Amino acid sequence: MKSFNPPIRTLMGPGPSDVHPRILSAMARPTIGHLDPAFVGMMDETKEALKYAFQTENDLTMPVSAPGSAGMETCFANLVEPGDKVIVCINGVFGIRMKENITRFGGEAIVVEDDWGTAVSTDKVEQALKDNPDAVILAFVHAETSTGALSDAKTLCQLAHQHDCITIVDAVTSLGGVELRVDEWGIDAIYSGTQKCLSAMPGISPISISERAIKKLTDRKIPVTSWFLDLNLVMGYWGEGAKRTYHHTAPVNTLYGLHESLVMLSDEGLENAWARHQKNHEILRDGLEEMGINFLVKKEDRLPQLNAVFIPEGADDAAVRSTLLNDYNLEIGAGLGAYAGKVWRIGLMGHTSRLENITLCLAALKATLNK
Amino acid sequence: MKSFNPPIRTLMGPGPSDVHPRILSAMARPTIGHLDPAFVGMMDETKEALKYAFQTENDLTMPVSAPGSAGMETCFANLVEPGDKVIVCINGVFGIRMKENITRFGGEAIVVEDDWGTAVSTDKVEQALKDNPDAVILAFVHAETSTGALSDAKTLCQLAHQHDCITIVDAVTSLGGVELRVDEWGIDAIYSGTQKCLSAMPGISPISISERAIKKLTDRKIPVTSWFLDLNLVMGYWGEGAKRTYHHTAPVNTLYGLHESLVMLSDEGLENAWARHQKNHEILRDGLEEMGINFLVKKEDRLPQLNAVFIPEGADDAAVRSTLLNDYNLEIGAGLGAYAGKVWRIGLMGHTSRLENITLCLAALKATLNK
Repeated sequence: MKSFNPPIRTLMGPGPSDVHPRILSAMARPTIGHLDPAFVGMMDETKEALKYAFQTENDLTMPVSAPGSAGMETCFANLVEPGDKVIVCINGVFGIRMKENITRFGGEAIVVEDDWGTAVSTDKVEQALKDNPDAVILAFVHAETSTGALSDAKTLCQLAHQHDCITIVDAVTSLGGVELRVDEWGIDAIYSGTQKCLSAMPGISPISISERAIKKLTDRKIPVTSWFLDLNLVMGYWGEGAKRTYHHTAPVNTLYGLHESLVMLSDEGLENAWARHQKNHEILRDGLEEMGINFLVKKEDRLPQLNAVFIPEGADDAAVRSTLLNDYNLEIGAGLGAYAGKVWRIGLMGHTSRLENITLCLAALKATLNK
Repeated sequence: MKSFNPPIRTLMGPGPSDVHPRILSAMARPTIGHLDPAFVGMMDETKEALKYAFQTENDLTMPVSAPGSAGMETCFANLVEPGDKVIVCINGVFGIRMKENITRFGGEAIVVEDDWGTAVSTDKVEQALKDNPDAVILAFVHAETSTGALSDAKTLCQLAHQHDCITIVDAVTSLGGVELRVDEWGIDAIYSGTQKCLSAMPGISPISISERAIKKLTDRKIPVTSWFLDLNLVMGYWGEGAKRTYHHTAPVNTLYGLHESLVMLSDEGLENAWARHQKNHEILRDGLEEMGINFLVKKEDRLPQLNAVFIPEGADDAAVRSTLLNDYNLEIGAGLGAYAGKVWRIGLMGHTSRLENITLCLAALKATLNK
């Protein structure tokens, strides 16, 4: 058995995105104890920096010590009680996963369905809220990673609050890449990943929970099923400085990486990061359209950081992706679910979102398709 | 906001232990996609190396993408069905956590209690198995991290099987540091951590599940509550090479670190690693006893890698630990639960288990106590 030396790739799939060398080298700093005062100070800074990234004042803003799927589960495990009626919007893979969470925790899922590749219909959601006055939660995906569609989180949250629902929002792919304002829009529970537009390594999931959502949690009649994800316990661990109660051992080095990525985000400025993602998307889009490649999502609903495009007629999905990977060390993403074999997903997330990568991707794709 | 540069500590607490520079530098290698063929190859090697560490041929041997507590929860969430009677041994903090898991998943916990700091009593367990012929699972902690007591996993598993129970075993602190033979002893579900005797960074949890346990899982009448930890789904992700089904995004760089730590374990040899932990424990023990410091656990039940010792009369727990940390950059662990303020826990795990660290610890402790 030998040490593993990974190939050097350019990561233009749906995540992980390229990790900046500054973040990689932060990961390699010496491990310290998870109750060390120096570590606790770093955790406090990380929480503050996540508040900035989410644009929130929520005290309960922190990274869950597990991937985005566990961030999702944290929100549903804590906020859904058996019998709760939850309106869930499905327009791709991650809406389906939300529904799965709801039913596993004993909730009743009321599904609002939209075609894959379109945004969630605010009209349909309004109708569902009217038809289900006893619903208590509205759940939807802000940025559908399976299709590259962006939904109107601001309007959806307004509608939810008009009907006394709290909101659970999937921002795995949106955080840091596109406008997102937790407090201004009234999002009550949100989860994200670190391996997308923050360009840190996969493995942890930033979340933020509003006072309204905490009230629902503390009013629960039965305990949260999961001990590991029970926010009543996790809050004691991520609470203010000296009061930290041991719950689990935090992923120390992965948190070094997240901290460094948040330093970089704060240096760049959140709105500048959003603008960079948008500008680079337009360059990629122009290049792809010039090659006759069409987008799955209509212009006004497109996520700049995840470009789902139809595989050109006659091109062999797997063969093209293999050539890009083997000859150019370039990863692009396959389609998921209903779009497997039909679309490619080209990510421009975080550190990946740079002109040199777009240029490589367009040239390599052109050369491969014309072979 | 500035980059975080941790102090350089010697980690002699209950974990994380010192991470070898080879493992730290593996963590900093460039991130690749979690579906990249090169990554899949590394995952397959990691599974094989974990089989060696666990001494098992179980196909379902893999790291859960979250800390040890989530490894624990994976075992209980999948194997405990509502109404199941589970005999659980409590002789410290982690037995209590097991019980918490059982009741949250709807099981009925039959508690076998032993004093903190003693091994689990095989006599009491035998009696409990006789008294509860309808019990289906026996759960116990092999190496109690809260007290440093080692239990006789081999005999406990034999008893369980004589009474048709499957076994769930906590090996968070034992894996790699003390004899552990999953197949020979008949352990059905086992979980560990990476930040103890493997000296990798915290954040993932190796598990191994026997065919008997998989049968209980596939015979379940209701689905596993947790989507993230549902082994029916996770097995598809960690399955053989080409068949990998996307479930979540694996913590790529953390897995580089685990892989490197397993290369080092295979180079050293498992039995040599056990012997090194034992030898270094004896050196530390002799030094501590010479200073008049006494062990919590009687000699034959002591874990070599976690030394719980009574705080000498007149010494101020927090002040001593602070001096060690601030003046010597040396971390030792506080007591947990019933032993908070009464014992220190001195870890000699993995890369920490070296003569230079023992020498530093003894000299620094002597100087601090004599101040």
